[in-house]
Amino acid sequence: MSNMDTLDRKFKTLEAENAPGQEVRQSTGDLKTLVRGEMLDGIPVDFSHGDVNAFEPTPGALEAWQNGYAVGGEQAYTEYRGDAQIRKNLAGRLEKFTGAALSAENELIITPGTQGALFLALGATVTSGTKVAVVEPDYFANRKLVSFFGGKLMPIPLRYQGQTATNGIDLNALEMAFNQGTEVLVFSTPNNPTGYVYSSKTIKAIASLATAYNTTVIVDQLYSRMLYSGEEYTHLRSCATPPKNLITIMGPSKTESLSGFRLGVAFGTAAIIERMERLQAIVSLRAAGYNQAALNTWFAEPSGWMEKRIADHEAIRDDLLRIFRNADLPTATPQAGSYLFPKLPKLVVDLGTFTRLLRFQAKVIVTPGTEFAPQFTNSIRLNFSQDHSAAVGAAHRIVKMVEIYKK
Amino acid sequence: MSNMDTLDRKFKTLEAENAPGQEVRQSTGDLKTLVRGEMLDGIPVDFSHGDVNAFEPTPGALEAWQNGYAVGGEQAYTEYRGDAQIRKNLAGRLEKFTGAALSAENELIITPGTQGALFLALGATVTSGTKVAVVEPDYFANRKLVSFFGGKLMPIPLRYQGQTATNGIDLNALEMAFNQGTEVLVFSTPNNPTGYVYSSKTIKAIASLATAYNTTVIVDQLYSRMLYSGEEYTHLRSCATPPKNLITIMGPSKTESLSGFRLGVAFGTAAIIERMERLQAIVSLRAAGYNQAALNTWFAEPSGWMEKRIADHEAIRDDLLRIFRNADLPTATPQAGSYLFPKLPKLVVDLGTFTRLLRFQAKVIVTPGTEFAPQFTNSIRLNFSQDHSAAVGAAHRIVKMVEIYKK
Repeated sequence: MSNMDTLDRKFKTLEAENAPGQEVRQSTGDLKTLVRGEMLDGIPVDFSHGDVNAFEPTPGALEAWQNGYAVGGEQAYTEYRGDAQIRKNLAGRLEKFTGAALSAENELIITPGTQGALFLALGATVTSGTKVAVVEPDYFANRKLVSFFGGKLMPIPLRYQGQTATNGIDLNALEMAFNQGTEVLVFSTPNNPTGYVYSSKTIKAIASLATAYNTTVIVDQLYSRMLYSGEEYTHLRSCATPPKNLITIMGPSKTESLSGFRLGVAFGTAAIIERMERLQAIVSLRAAGYNQAALNTWFAEPSGWMEKRIADHEAIRDDLLRIFRNADLPTATPQAGSYLFPKLPKLVVDLGTFTRLLRFQAKVIVTPGTEFAPQFTNSIRLNFSQDHSAAVGAAHRIVKMVEIYKK
Repeated sequence: MSNMDTLDRKFKTLEAENAPGQEVRQSTGDLKTLVRGEMLDGIPVDFSHGDVNAFEPTPGALEAWQNGYAVGGEQAYTEYRGDAQIRKNLAGRLEKFTGAALSAENELIITPGTQGALFLALGATVTSGTKVAVVEPDYFANRKLVSFFGGKLMPIPLRYQGQTATNGIDLNALEMAFNQGTEVLVFSTPNNPTGYVYSSKTIKAIASLATAYNTTVIVDQLYSRMLYSGEEYTHLRSCATPPKNLITIMGPSKTESLSGFRLGVAFGTAAIIERMERLQAIVSLRAAGYNQAALNTWFAEPSGWMEKRIADHEAIRDDLLRIFRNADLPTATPQAGSYLFPKLPKLVVDLGTFTRLLRFQAKVIVTPGTEFAPQFTNSIRLNFSQDHSAAVGAAHRIVKMVEIYKK
């Protein structure tokens, strides 16, 4: 096979046409012949990502950026791993949040978004032939990253539609994968797209298996701050014996609505952080210097701000759950984060066509389940961090569309 | 060889300790025993990158960012390839500047800095075993990127110390490399670190060879706007028959001092831009949304601003050239950009130690020539986009240090 063929194949697996936010590049020309019934009116809602107009960036983020710009050269040209003072501030706050010590000097890197952190973490640990355990369903880029770096996917099924106590990954499948030479595990908790939070028992089991098999673990905790009432969260890095090679990823793009700043952090094993910095030096040099200053607002929000943000999201969650369940669309209760992953009945069109029809006929953008693993051909993902009443209206239109196109 | 060994080797080649801007992580503990003579006083100058306090960001960049922030969600979540309207504005200006048509829709991507553009361009065209022609000396990341993607370096020597008319790359070596199966050529013009501008004749020869051998060309034109009096610049993409697969890279980080925004662009062959966007989707999603708005100031600077900026740099260039040449340090005249690459005599310490001594004893940071190809063990690179008198003082200290440590 020639190099060009290899590249063609490699980039075929990176198709991004259905990726969240890219819908604007899809053609709608052929849809008119497929439309049944009337156009559904209502306020357009783009559930592919959160609406930072409905939930605005953290108070002070704008001023923090302006302060960074005023600092000038020192803020523009930070170390590749990020400004030393900002890392120092963050390390203390992340220590407190995750319940385990953290060295600002050696164990923390600031990245262009959590996407940047994931890329660097997998780039630092996966090469041609590396077996990587990937949960299904999970964040769409995990699979693509493993494929881009030449790794081999070891799928681990996640049960998320049952009772909270019995949900979780298949630990036997995980141990079998580790036993078969899996060197890296990557997963998100809260899980994207379902909102499932890994139980303390499961997190401890993962720590113990990773230690026994010397597996590197990359845990994406992007949504861990938006934890709903009555739920508990366990940080893998706070376990009594955490994995020796462990990277935790977070960022202020979601709950805090700072996505337009492209900021994330990765923290953990110093040797992996060191590699990630070397890789960052050739990928993008650093997270934009002035933007890094906005991290000074992170974990330092005004009193009561986070509690209100969570309560507002919980109210939207509960309304949408009611709407989907009343329409007999099975939908797991997200324990954290702002994703819903309802299951649809059999339709007369395939899922890709249905999501394009949703956009065209009902002014609703959702992400097809197949982005999270190929077998999820009958689920859609919604980011419900939206204007409350617009989200409710759009959920009703989704239900109507399902009725129209039901087989 | 195990996967872990492969990764160790891969990241060994990405060592960034001597990379520009990373000097702050070096230890100086062992230097005291090597110091000869006195500490040299003066205003500290960091020649590893431009000083955006001495040469401030383009007027209006701050306001453009604030406008972007005020737009909100639409500016935070652009297409991965960047905001459509900003691309449209840019395409017209880049067309005019480079002298060839450009489709905003299909041939242009906005990236996190030109570093981001280079990473995506090489990631889209280089895989395991791809032979890549790399000029020596040239931008330090080119070599590392080829190595990271598993490509094979095909070195092409650049003559830069002679007369302008006889300087240039060895075209016979280039054709031989193409003939031996080289699939990609990457080079910068103006050349980093020497400031050499590829002649019209050489650019045409490259176009013709690339067409004959079907070679993909990635040309880094980051500094092409800062062209000194009497010099001419030829855009590869404006040739009568440009290479079929051609990506041009530029950005506002240098001449315009917008480095703290991390913005770059790549433009050219639609199929490669498409791959670059797919890759960007898993690397960092997009250049920070609000920052993209600062591109509205690019190629739209106030009248006379660019002329003054170039004249100011030319004056610094001339002073530093005089200082180095008077001290018998051979230094090519940069035709564009703000890099100087003086050659040092034999020293009693190796180049790495000398640059660390420069920092410790003379408060001057420079980048060792070995970052640009391993054989440049007796050259140093300076970015002279600095406060004029501080730069002159620092250049005198470099000369003094060379006298002290000369063999």
